[in-house]
Amino acid sequence: MADNHKMWQELGMDVETHDLLCEALPQAFGDVFLSQKDRPNKMDYFNMVVADIHGIRPSELIEHQKNGGKVVGSFCIHVPDEVVIAAGAIATGLCSGSQFWVPGGEKVLPTATCPLIKASLGARFDRTCPFFRICDLFVGETTCDGKKKAWEVLSEDAPMYIMDIPQMKRQDDFEKWEKEIKNYIKKLEELTGNTVTQDSLHDAILTVNAKRKALQRLNEFRKLENIPISGRDVLLITQIAFYDDPKRFAQMVNILCDELEQRKKDNFSVYEKGTKRILLTGTPLSIPNWKLHQIIETSGGAVVCEEMCTGIRYSEALVNEEKASMEKMIENLAQRYLGNINCACFTPNKSRIDDIIRLAKEYKADGVIDVNLKFCNIYDIEGYFVEKALADAGIPCIGIETDYTDEDAEQLKTRIGAFIEMLS
Amino acid sequence: MADNHKMWQELGMDVETHDLLCEALPQAFGDVFLSQKDRPNKMDYFNMVVADIHGIRPSELIEHQKNGGKVVGSFCIHVPDEVVIAAGAIATGLCSGSQFWVPGGEKVLPTATCPLIKASLGARFDRTCPFFRICDLFVGETTCDGKKKAWEVLSEDAPMYIMDIPQMKRQDDFEKWEKEIKNYIKKLEELTGNTVTQDSLHDAILTVNAKRKALQRLNEFRKLENIPISGRDVLLITQIAFYDDPKRFAQMVNILCDELEQRKKDNFSVYEKGTKRILLTGTPLSIPNWKLHQIIETSGGAVVCEEMCTGIRYSEALVNEEKASMEKMIENLAQRYLGNINCACFTPNKSRIDDIIRLAKEYKADGVIDVNLKFCNIYDIEGYFVEKALADAGIPCIGIETDYTDEDAEQLKTRIGAFIEMLS
Repeated sequence: MADNHKMWQELGMDVETHDLLCEALPQAFGDVFLSQKDRPNKMDYFNMVVADIHGIRPSELIEHQKNGGKVVGSFCIHVPDEVVIAAGAIATGLCSGSQFWVPGGEKVLPTATCPLIKASLGARFDRTCPFFRICDLFVGETTCDGKKKAWEVLSEDAPMYIMDIPQMKRQDDFEKWEKEIKNYIKKLEELTGNTVTQDSLHDAILTVNAKRKALQRLNEFRKLENIPISGRDVLLITQIAFYDDPKRFAQMVNILCDELEQRKKDNFSVYEKGTKRILLTGTPLSIPNWKLHQIIETSGGAVVCEEMCTGIRYSEALVNEEKASMEKMIENLAQRYLGNINCACFTPNKSRIDDIIRLAKEYKADGVIDVNLKFCNIYDIEGYFVEKALADAGIPCIGIETDYTDEDAEQLKTRIGAFIEMLS
Repeated sequence: MADNHKMWQELGMDVETHDLLCEALPQAFGDVFLSQKDRPNKMDYFNMVVADIHGIRPSELIEHQKNGGKVVGSFCIHVPDEVVIAAGAIATGLCSGSQFWVPGGEKVLPTATCPLIKASLGARFDRTCPFFRICDLFVGETTCDGKKKAWEVLSEDAPMYIMDIPQMKRQDDFEKWEKEIKNYIKKLEELTGNTVTQDSLHDAILTVNAKRKALQRLNEFRKLENIPISGRDVLLITQIAFYDDPKRFAQMVNILCDELEQRKKDNFSVYEKGTKRILLTGTPLSIPNWKLHQIIETSGGAVVCEEMCTGIRYSEALVNEEKASMEKMIENLAQRYLGNINCACFTPNKSRIDDIIRLAKEYKADGVIDVNLKFCNIYDIEGYFVEKALADAGIPCIGIETDYTDEDAEQLKTRIGAFIEMLS
């Protein structure tokens, strides 16, 4: 940890304040994760990564920079990591999931902004997150009002680049998104001094697909009657997917899946019989936001799927793996990054409703919890359709609104507990 | 009024509930408008229009429909009326400014949605506004999250058409917006059975420009030291601009301006000496939202300019009047409707900040009030830049957040009164 402190100081961080965050994390992690019975042994890697989340990976990123490489941070699963990797840079997620950073964000943003956005800006302005110090470029997008406008504030302190995502999905919109990806490639080539080639782009597509395939393999186990891994652990792994080296990460997930294969053969479940299967849908759960999973899984429920950016929305669809012309591979990226992600930022967004119904069936959910981060207007409004479609399908559902504080934890326990109890 | 009732019944309105609104309006109108000293005589036309706002104009729209014409409603000054007029249809504004409609909107939308959007949906779902019954087409846009998603809910009950506005203003974005206008023309041609021709489009450009020029002429009087018309009256006229027949409206505004010319020669002011000049900036004030003007102008202030959609943003820029090819005229429309409206929905939106500073100088404002409709995230976040730029320019400014209720009226009076008092 002495080395970490030196690194954080060199990054210009507010080390003293940051220490408070470091002190709180082990307790929270222990309560949510280490307290679980029957965790797979191969969770050890992920435990280690998160235990030193501001140490191990940041030092790798800095090492890359010392060798002349660049680090590119982004906030949204619509921004294609493939082109970053193809330009020889490292891509890292930046979404922030702790209340620790929210007050810093509230200094520059209205209180009535979603905690994810406030925490992200707080992490930068308060200088209490190494990832927010390291990145050479911060890539924002125009998915929602809060983010779109927050990037303007962030750009006062950090080097920003904005991708304008279409709000609809017509043929013209796919062409627009292709143009945005091409512009992004140009920007990355300028930043890195490297050229994105047919080979490097194709390799990157394979690399990121391999990560998604590992996550798909992991999620398949959650469809079993006897589930060999908890929802909490899968959430943690998905959160780490945004930060870790993609090749090592895929390898580690596959090693874990090998262990789960054995559990599958043994019909081994980490849950007691009668545990209710819950599909979570809604806004993302960024690291270290584990609140809902913890409440659900200590109230007689098992989270079997997250129809979320930090869930199936991130991993379910692959990019076409053909080694084609640059033009065609960019078209394939646009197809996947616009067409196959059903964020509530789009209008209309019926495909997400279809996804929820389909996933509830595939994962044999007993009930659905529709989660909304406070002040996220798009998911909040779309909840109207989610709840209607689930009612029509005869699938029990409750809508929950929450933020990063623990103030509503008791109330949520009561509501979620009652919901799970009434599931037949 | 008997005829109105018959018309409202035939429109399928909830006449009984609507009567409550009709009963409340004369009192509110009397308090805000008729109580003023020295109003121009030629306000009579506008008084009449608003006194029978759900009678006169709706009956004209219905007459148009009886003759085979169509009526197209929209919610945003980015949607070009010119192409509606060029297709032989009538364009009408639909934004709703009364708390009366908010609870109806809250039945289908989250409470944490801006009152303008909630009121607009409430007006339709509660069947208490004739304009929302009459329209053959409802044209929404993707300017903000709340509107973008609310149109999906509205489309369950009303025939919607969506224009996807770019969130940025690069060359590609102008091309995208041209395409949207072309698609809109196609849609209108289908709806009306008419063809938009070079002649009809050019005529429509002249018609809408004439309306804007009349409003520009009216606003010029507010730059004078002795202001011959109140801010309340100009706001009312601007609100009526969204509903009235554009040619008649322009004519009536010009007749009023002739009267104001005489007042100008006489150095006549409707305000007492020492009244402070206030620039309002921020979110729109839809009819009958007169709350802030009333508070300001009964607290020692004069509203001299609204940097708002219901203000200078609506009237300041003209479309190029050249009679060119269809292609070129659509390009001119795109230029004006994307380039010259600086809504907070764009990123970045520095031109709006420049507008505010410029307008504060042109209208010799003593102070600026930055108004935000509750839960409007884009203007709320942009307020950060507005207040910073005004501080840098040495122009006093306060930020106000409000909604359509009267609950905060006393608090606003105190704050605004104190602000005006401290202006030197």
